[in-house]
Amino acid sequence: MLTEFELIKHCFNWPQNNDDIICAVGDDASIVKVPNGYDLVQSIDTQVADVHFPASAPAQLIAQRALRCAISDLAAMGAKPQAFHLALSLPKNTNQTWLESFSKGLHTCANEYDISLIGGDTTSSPTLVITIQVQGIVPSGSALTRNKAQIGDGIWLSGEIGKSAAALDSILANPSAFIENTCDSHDSELATAYYYPQAQIALGQKLIGIASSAMDISDGLLQDGSHIAKASDVCLNFATADIPINKRAIALHGKEAALELALSGGDDYQLLFTAPQDAKETLINLGCHCIGQVQEKSSDWLILNGQPLKNTIMGYQHF
Amino acid sequence: MLTEFELIKHCFNWPQNNDDIICAVGDDASIVKVPNGYDLVQSIDTQVADVHFPASAPAQLIAQRALRCAISDLAAMGAKPQAFHLALSLPKNTNQTWLESFSKGLHTCANEYDISLIGGDTTSSPTLVITIQVQGIVPSGSALTRNKAQIGDGIWLSGEIGKSAAALDSILANPSAFIENTCDSHDSELATAYYYPQAQIALGQKLIGIASSAMDISDGLLQDGSHIAKASDVCLNFATADIPINKRAIALHGKEAALELALSGGDDYQLLFTAPQDAKETLINLGCHCIGQVQEKSSDWLILNGQPLKNTIMGYQHF
Repeated sequence: MLTEFELIKHCFNWPQNNDDIICAVGDDASIVKVPNGYDLVQSIDTQVADVHFPASAPAQLIAQRALRCAISDLAAMGAKPQAFHLALSLPKNTNQTWLESFSKGLHTCANEYDISLIGGDTTSSPTLVITIQVQGIVPSGSALTRNKAQIGDGIWLSGEIGKSAAALDSILANPSAFIENTCDSHDSELATAYYYPQAQIALGQKLIGIASSAMDISDGLLQDGSHIAKASDVCLNFATADIPINKRAIALHGKEAALELALSGGDDYQLLFTAPQDAKETLINLGCHCIGQVQEKSSDWLILNGQPLKNTIMGYQHF
Repeated sequence: MLTEFELIKHCFNWPQNNDDIICAVGDDASIVKVPNGYDLVQSIDTQVADVHFPASAPAQLIAQRALRCAISDLAAMGAKPQAFHLALSLPKNTNQTWLESFSKGLHTCANEYDISLIGGDTTSSPTLVITIQVQGIVPSGSALTRNKAQIGDGIWLSGEIGKSAAALDSILANPSAFIENTCDSHDSELATAYYYPQAQIALGQKLIGIASSAMDISDGLLQDGSHIAKASDVCLNFATADIPINKRAIALHGKEAALELALSGGDDYQLLFTAPQDAKETLINLGCHCIGQVQEKSSDWLILNGQPLKNTIMGYQHF
C-alpha cells in the first residue's frame, strides 16, 4: 500500500487548465481567483456508504454519482462550475484498485463538467464517507435562489422525474450488477439515472433572468417544492397530469406507483423552478415542462390538483 | 427528535455580519463575494471519531478542535478568515443536547476567528465524521506557500510544539474529564493545547512579505518540514536545542521523550516557516523562534544537528 501522500499524489493530482486556479492539490490550501463582476456559489454534499449509495457498487459509479449530485447544486443556482474539494474517509481495507477506479470515475465526471479538483483530505474511517465541496461563478447578483417565486408564476421542471427512485429496489438488490453501457440485471435507463444524474448546468445558466426561483430536486418534488414555497411565502399548486414521468418507470411499477415515486422518491437532480407566464414559449423551447402555478399562500404550502397533500407522501429524510 | 431541517435551522442558522456573505445556510448553495484585489484561499479538513478525537469527548470541545484545526490552514497561507461550510455525519443515536453543545462550541470558535458558517450538509452515518471547508482572503498573489524556501533562509517556529502530543495519553485514557477552564484529571495546559489549538491567523497575515515559505504543523515538525523541503527542493537543517519545548511536557515525559513528541507528535498547529536572515529581528519581536537553516539539497530532505534522520521518528500517518 502506498503512503497517504503517495496515494493522494498518485490518484488525485490531475493537471489543471483553468487560469483562475492559482494553486491546487499539494499545499495547506488551494488558491483561486474569482473574476471581477462575479459572485462565488458554493455547496457541500456528503454521501455515506449504505446510506446514500450501496457500499458494494463499483467505485467509479460511486464517484460519478457523488460529484454529479454535488454539481447539481451549482446548476440550481445558475452557476458555471469552477472547482471542487474532496474529503474522502476510507475504511482501512480499501485497496489501491478501488481508489484508482474511484479516481477514474471522478476525473471523467470532472472533465465532463469542466470542474477542477483543487484540494482535499484523505482520512481513515470505519465507514466510507465522501464529502465534496463544489463551487462555481455567476454574474454578480444574478444567482437563482428559492425565495423569489411570485404569485401567478408557472412552476416548471427541467425533465422527467422518478427514474432514480424507480431503479432503487433493483440497484439495492444487486449493487454491483450495473456497469457502464451494459444493462445486465438492471434496467439500464433507470439505473443510469441513479448513477449518472445529469446536473442541469447549461439550463441553469440559461434560466438566469428568466426564472424567479429555482432549486434542484434531490429529496423528492414535494419536499423540495415545499422549500421554494416556504422561502417565497407562497403556495405551489401542482397539476399531476402535467408531471413528466418516465415510460419505463410506469411499465415497471404501474402508473400510480410511478407518480408517487416521481412526487416523493428523490435522487432526480432535475431543476424545479418558477417563472413568469411570459417565459412560457422560451421554456418550452428549452425542453422544460410546466407542471403548475404559484398561488397565494393559504393554509398549505403545497396543493395537488387543488387538493391538500397527505403527509405520507412527502420526500426522503436523510437524517 | 426534530426533523433534519428543523435541527439544522435550530442549531446552525446564526446571524451573519459580513457584507461579503450574500447568501448563507438555507438555499441550494451559499453565495459570497471575493473583494477585488484578493485571492480566495480554501481548505477542507475531516475529523473522524476515535481516529482524530475521542468519540466520548465533550461535543463542544470536538467542535472547537475541528474548526480550529481547519482554520489553521488559512493561517499557514497568510489568509484572513471569511467563511466555512460544515458537513456533519451523525450516528442515529445522536441526541439534541449533543448537537446543541457541538453548535455552541462551533459558534464560540467562529466568533473568535470572525468566520461565518455559510452552508452545510447533515447526514446519518454509523460513524461521527466532521468535515469542515474553510476559506479566507489574501491580497492577490501574496499567499504564503511551501515552495519558495531559499538556501540560507532561517527556519522558524511560531511557538512551542509537542504540547498536544504530550497530553494525548491522558486525554485518550479519560476523554470526558477535560472541561473548559478546569483541570480535573488532565494537565490543563497540555489538554488545552489539544482541544483549543491556536490557529496563528494574526501572525500568518503579518508574515506576508516576510516569510519565503510557510505551513502549519499538524502531523509533526519533521513530516511537515519534509513537505517544505520537497516543495522547495532544499534541505532543512534543524538545531534541536533551539526548538521551543513546553516545560510541562518535559516535566511529564522527560527531556528526550518531550523532544521526540515535539519532532513527531503532531497536532501542534504552530506555523513552520522560512525567512531571509534580514528578517531575524522582526521575527524575534513577533515571538517566533529560529530553529535552523535552509541548506542546499543533498541526499536528505531533513538534517537534525547535521545528522541524517532515523526514519522511525517521522510523523503521524492518518491513513
